[in-house]
Formats: sequence, C-alpha cells, structure tokens
Amino acid sequence: MDDVEDPIPRTVEWRDGAVRLIDQRELPRQLRFLDCLTVDKVCEAITSLAVRGAPALGATGGYGVALACATAGGPGVPEATLLRVAAEAADRLIATRPTAVNLAWGVRRVLAAAESAAGGGAEAVGRAALEEAERLADQDVADNRALGRHGAALVPDGAQVLTHCNAGALACVGYGTALGVIRAAAEAGKNPRVWVDETRPVLQGARLTAWELDRLGIDATLVADVMAGSLMASGDVDLVVVGADRVAANGDVANKIGTYSLAVLAAHHDIPFYVAAPTATIDLATKTGAAIPVEERSPDEVHMIGRSRFSPPGMAALNRAFDVTPAALVTAIVTELGLARPPYDKSLRRLVEAAPHRLPLQ
Amino acid sequence: MDDVEDPIPRTVEWRDGAVRLIDQRELPRQLRFLDCLTVDKVCEAITSLAVRGAPALGATGGYGVALACATAGGPGVPEATLLRVAAEAADRLIATRPTAVNLAWGVRRVLAAAESAAGGGAEAVGRAALEEAERLADQDVADNRALGRHGAALVPDGAQVLTHCNAGALACVGYGTALGVIRAAAEAGKNPRVWVDETRPVLQGARLTAWELDRLGIDATLVADVMAGSLMASGDVDLVVVGADRVAANGDVANKIGTYSLAVLAAHHDIPFYVAAPTATIDLATKTGAAIPVEERSPDEVHMIGRSRFSPPGMAALNRAFDVTPAALVTAIVTELGLARPPYDKSLRRLVEAAPHRLPLQ
Repeated sequence: MDDVEDPIPRTVEWRDGAVRLIDQRELPRQLRFLDCLTVDKVCEAITSLAVRGAPALGATGGYGVALACATAGGPGVPEATLLRVAAEAADRLIATRPTAVNLAWGVRRVLAAAESAAGGGAEAVGRAALEEAERLADQDVADNRALGRHGAALVPDGAQVLTHCNAGALACVGYGTALGVIRAAAEAGKNPRVWVDETRPVLQGARLTAWELDRLGIDATLVADVMAGSLMASGDVDLVVVGADRVAANGDVANKIGTYSLAVLAAHHDIPFYVAAPTATIDLATKTGAAIPVEERSPDEVHMIGRSRFSPPGMAALNRAFDVTPAALVTAIVTELGLARPPYDKSLRRLVEAAPHRLPLQ
Repeated sequence: MDDVEDPIPRTVEWRDGAVRLIDQRELPRQLRFLDCLTVDKVCEAITSLAVRGAPALGATGGYGVALACATAGGPGVPEATLLRVAAEAADRLIATRPTAVNLAWGVRRVLAAAESAAGGGAEAVGRAALEEAERLADQDVADNRALGRHGAALVPDGAQVLTHCNAGALACVGYGTALGVIRAAAEAGKNPRVWVDETRPVLQGARLTAWELDRLGIDATLVADVMAGSLMASGDVDLVVVGADRVAANGDVANKIGTYSLAVLAAHHDIPFYVAAPTATIDLATKTGAAIPVEERSPDEVHMIGRSRFSPPGMAALNRAFDVTPAALVTAIVTELGLARPPYDKSLRRLVEAAPHRLPLQ
C-alpha cells in the first residue's frame, strides 16, 4: 500500500508463483525484472548480485523458502516431504552469502512459520510460508520508513551527506536504510546534498545509489571512493551514513568494503559517522566483529569493470567484499525503533528485545 | 647507458627530431610509442594523460621546448625569433597541468639553457636546449636510482608495501620514485610484496603499476582503493610509499587523489608513510599545501571506465585529481640526496640547497 506512489518498485516480491526481483546487474541501463521459478534460480540471483543488500537478502531468502514449498507442493505430496524440501532449500539459500545476517534470519523465520503449520497438511504449510514471507517483506518497508524518520532528526538543514555502496530501496524491499535516512530528511524539507561513493569493485554507488537518488530528485554528486578524504578535509561533508550487513552485539559493524576507511576518516575530521540498520541486522549471537565471516569474492571483480579487463594478464588480485568497523568509530546506529548510542552492548540489546518481529513467531 | 638492460623502456626520449613517448593510455594492452612532431602534440599528450607523473612531465616539458627550437629553427630564422617561439611554447606547455611542479621546472630549465646560448646564433640556441633536455632526462634516471637506494633502507625484509597510483618508471624518465624504492629493495634481495591500489578514476595502479611490477618480476597483488583500510587493520601492510606531484616548503605533499586518505589510515594504524620524490619536486616557493593548485579534471573520468558509462545519464560528478597530505602525516620524504625528516621546513631546504642541478645553470 505504501508503495503505490513510490518511484522505485519493490526490489523483491511474490508474483504469480515466482520470486520477482529487480535485476540490479542491469541498472542503471534498464529496469528489468527477473522471475525466479526455482530455488536454484533464487540462489543464482543472490550469488551473481542480481539482488544484494542485507534486508533485500532477508526478504529474498524468505520468499525462497516459500517458493520451495510452492513448487514442491503438488497434489498428493505429503506434508513431511514438503517440510524436508523446505529445510533443504533453507540450507542452500543460507549458504549463498556468509556476511549479511539478514539472509539466514529471513530464511529461518519463514521456515519456522512453515514448520509451525505442520499437522494442517501440505497446503497449510505452503500457505503459512508464503504469508510469513509477505509479512516479512511488508515489515521491511514499514521498518525502513520508521528508521528513516528517526535518522532524519540527525541531518541538519542543507547538510552534505556522504554515503557508500547502496543502502537504498534496492538493498531492501523498499525505501532504504541509509538512503531512507536521506530520503526522510528530504521529505522533511531539509534539502540534503549527497556525495555518492562509486564503491568499487561492483560500483553499487555509481550504478544503484545514483539511480535511486536521480529517481527521487535528491541532489547528488558522484565521486570516486578515493575522494572522500579530500571532501572531508575541505569541509564538504557534514555527516556519513551507511548501511550494515551485520551488527555485532558490541556494536562492531560489517558493511561493504571501504566503510571502515570512511569511519577512520570521519573520526579524524570529527564528522559524525552513522550506521542505518533495522534490528533484523543486529546479531546478538555474534559477540564482536572479529567473529563475523567476511566474504572474499572473485578477483575478476577487481580486474574487470563490466566486460573490460584493465590489469595485465596473470596479475593477482584480492577481493574482500566487506570490512568491519569497530564500534568506537560509530557515532550512533539508527534502527526502526530509534537510535542506539554507546555503550552499544546495552543499547543494542535493549532495542532487539523491544523488536516484536524478532520474537520466534507471532 | 643504465637503461640498456631495463625491462621498461624510457617513458620519454628524443628520437629522430621528435619527442617519443610511451603512450600510457594503451597500457597494459600494448606497449606503443607516440612520436610528437609538434609542441601542440606534446601538449595534447600531456592533457590526455598519454604521459603523466611529475618527473616524466618535467622531462617531457623540457623536450617540448627543445622541440619548439628544432621545428622553428630552419635556415635563415633569426635567433631572436627562435627564442620567442621557445618562450611561447614554454607558456603553453606549463599551462597544460597545474599541480605537478616538475613540469614548469623542466620547461623553465631548458628555456633558460636556450636563452643562455643567445648570441651564438639560432643553431647554438637549439643545440643548447636539446642538450639541456637530454641532461635533465639522464639526471632523472640517475636521481631515481639514488633515491631508490636511500629508500630501500626503509624497507624491512619481506615487507608488505602498499602503493598508490603509479610512481614508477612510467611516471619518470625511468626507474621510478616510489616504485624505485620497491625496486631497489627487491634488487637488494629483500623480497618486498606489493599491494597495488587500482587508483580510480584513471586506474594508473591497475594499468601501469601492475604492468611495471609484472615486467620486473616483483610479487604484486591488485586491490580496489577501498581495501587499504581493511589490509592495514588485518596487519598486512608494513609501510606505505607513494610519489608526489609537489612538496611544499613545510613538507605538505600534493599527490594523486586518495593519497591523503592512505596517510590518515596509516597514521591510525601506526604504519610508516613515506613519500618518494626527487628534489626537483620540492617547491620552496610554495610555503604550504594550501597554496598548491589542485587540478579538477573532467567528470567523465568518474562516470566512465574505458568507453563504458556506469552512472545514470544526467548524474553530476566531481573529479579532483589530487589531494594534499599534511606534513604531520608523513614519516619521511625520500630524495636522491637522502631522507628528509620532520621538521621539514629545515630538512627540505637543506636538501634543495645541496642539489646541484637545482642551480640556475651549470
């Protein structure tokens, strides 16, 4: 309902028995949808970055489990078989990417809904899975709107805001987390001006964040990642806001590679550094950032841009996809339930315990 | 002479009445030479980055003045005309790029040599210009070898060294400054391992530094610029060494955009941050970094990589080509005459005054 007038369609939704995704590999060239009719296709969409972003991965994982139930749930299939298929699909979905905690969270939440319907027959199990996946997706958009409102209070009038990667509508089901803060500030008439880090190697900033801000009519200027320090030194950055793939219990934040450098630079220049993340991204089971698995992706993402290779043949490359920013460098964490401030071990636990949809099942 | 066995040919030289440059836009795809037969072509080669790097620009500017004399110096051309043509060429060459001080330095040095030959006739003027340009180029290679030896003493055995942009043979006439330090360390048997920052937007690291290290057989791994902080945090960087486009009298360093961020990160991790620059790059007439003009280049370099545009049409972009690193973040400056350490106002002045080829003319 809240999407009707949104200039950006939902990143992931259920459409005619398929998981429909915006194919983010095609942006900003074209807005194309990818209909996944099997769990394999969903897994492939995740690993190839057709869909990415922690909250979007949570919703996609949830829909993936619902899809497993829908495709396996023909007439005469016993409930126990369906549940076995769903559990197996859940394992495959979770294994696609290790760093974002939302993926496992969304998958497990929908699997638990399916399992809680056991006894009612295969059809009831499938229905419960899909309903929970839909609820999770709707909740994401509502949470991000709430998060945006809390975060907008941190944005001064006319502020110059630096962001990294894409923590926008495309990284979620809708509205966005870090870009949700910027969007809510714009909706509140604060006229933020955004520096968009291009975010090598996959260029989510140049391709996705630029596309979103253009659609939203928010003042934005693209820069290469190397320019952030210079912009801060010349007084052109009032605050930094980024998303998160996982927040540990102590407030350490895993996010797109390059986030840590920005946090160090922001601290050096005494500029506030905010992390925007729904409570679903907070993982109290992970004590500190040292325990967060950091994905290494193919060196080809560094050697190549699009289809062109720039480095000499035979050159080695390293491609860490994420880094960990210590809590000490984070000014505040913005969630749908309000701000967490240091000491984060206390403030994050309080927020997570207050989050109703974190409870096993309603 | 010292180039005979060099796996990397001279970046710029005089060949059959033309200024011959390695066309760096074509690397690493192919090693192709560009013969500039007019000063206009030399200017175009500089602005289009066919040749770049502070010391290489100094030599190219010097040869450019020699070329102006050679092309204007036909039979019957009066000496005064030749000198006017040379002075006009000097102005045009200096105007091509504002940040690197070596360009103006090389141009002025060769122009002064031409002017000092006045009275001997047009032929003598042209010969004096070319001889000075050749002397300047030979001196560059010799200076860089000396600089490399001084810098190698700073590199521990098996050190992991991070470098940014290209301060190699291709940025000079030969051997390199920052890469000269690494090369000299390798020649001394220290087995350095190099992290090569790709250096957006023009990718001098991925294209040029990678190509040089591959030719030299030095262990190198390419990373996106955003990965430097993560590498430092994981203990994988023992020192940073970069080149410079201009060093101010107080030790502030202008260099490729992104250098400043590396310096802040290195200080945060207590990692030595070295600048390798011949004394010709030290500009005592510039008191501090605030007085160094920082070139802004076309936004297209940010929007595009090669011939592909990645950002949405109509998106704005900012393209600062350089940044300024305050002296306080620089551990030492390595020159051909030895190291400068803080306080730089004293140590740099001492080195510059000791540099014989800084004197007006020998």
